Amino acid sequence: MKTPSSLEALVEALRRLPGVGPKSAQRMAYYLLQHDREGAQRLAKSLGEAVTRVRHCDKCNNFAEEPLCELCSSARRDASILCVVEMPGDVAMMEQAQAYRGLYFVLLGRLSPLDGIGPKEINLDRLVKRATDGQVREAIIATNFTTEGEATAHYIAEMLTARGLKVTRIARGLPVGGELEHVDSGTLAQSVIERRPVD
Amino acid sequence: MKTPSSLEALVEALRRLPGVGPKSAQRMAYYLLQHDREGAQRLAKSLGEAVTRVRHCDKCNNFAEEPLCELCSSARRDASILCVVEMPGDVAMMEQAQAYRGLYFVLLGRLSPLDGIGPKEINLDRLVKRATDGQVREAIIATNFTTEGEATAHYIAEMLTARGLKVTRIARGLPVGGELEHVDSGTLAQSVIERRPVD
Repeated sequence: MKTPSSLEALVEALRRLPGVGPKSAQRMAYYLLQHDREGAQRLAKSLGEAVTRVRHCDKCNNFAEEPLCELCSSARRDASILCVVEMPGDVAMMEQAQAYRGLYFVLLGRLSPLDGIGPKEINLDRLVKRATDGQVREAIIATNFTTEGEATAHYIAEMLTARGLKVTRIARGLPVGGELEHVDSGTLAQSVIERRPVD
Repeated sequence: MKTPSSLEALVEALRRLPGVGPKSAQRMAYYLLQHDREGAQRLAKSLGEAVTRVRHCDKCNNFAEEPLCELCSSARRDASILCVVEMPGDVAMMEQAQAYRGLYFVLLGRLSPLDGIGPKEINLDRLVKRATDGQVREAIIATNFTTEGEATAHYIAEMLTARGLKVTRIARGLPVGGELEHVDSGTLAQSVIERRPVD
């Protein structure tokens, strides 16, 4: 009752952002009104425009403003490698890592039998069609290293190997700059199992 | 170049929120577009409405949609006590603590001589006028316990005491549920110096 209702509505709307609790939402709302009303207006405009303009690429499911995303329509990407990820955000992370110059396929999900999400629900037949276009030689599976991501990777690997593709999985191990003392034992164990010869 | 420009603009706009770095901004933008477009639109609307409708209360500087805020126009608040805080967000925090039923005065700043912010810049004469309206008997100073907040408290205390008001300061000490092992030594030292008799 003590907060103006438009301010209260703003706090509520901010709370829906991932990682934003009631305290941060309040801090954000007060900050914007106190110090950055122009930023608030810019954010409102950006939200509206992104929601209106951003759709999924017809070929890879990545976010795009045109039927084809910039990656799929670029002549400079290597069309013989296809990286399979779960979400559009994963493409952004991969691009920021600057270690990959092939194309992508975004599953927009992962296998999760307990939630009733099987191969059909995430349209794996579209992936098969995409991966067997005659150009793709290698599929790099970059789903998350969660239980579901691993199960998805396993399923896709079998499916694409059966169709004659070379299938690889991104590496697990210690993070760059990581110290043995601070890494969890599961990761450390994997990094021993998947050790590589020193050149 | 790889991200749709409206998506990029949204990430940039989200980065201006306090406590939001490039990674969280990206996560938020992708989350909204992937999972909660309705939430994005609601947020855009709330931002616009709050910016348009929220102003400062003529009497206490708190956020309000009318010339007077709900607190200043309420008959149920004790007009004999005035709590002085730095920012509108502090009023919200005080109200959520539910331990105060007087009125407020929001400084919209703090003394900061190094940044050229003196008594004039934060309009302390308006506070004096407000505090000497004949109704106020006690001023509770609730500025932050930072160097600048403390200096501001000190200055205001002298100013209002000289005008015959009873001036108090909110207490410093261990947080509720706090353990000696985890509190910083400055706070612990203060809680010893400002110890109180056990009833």
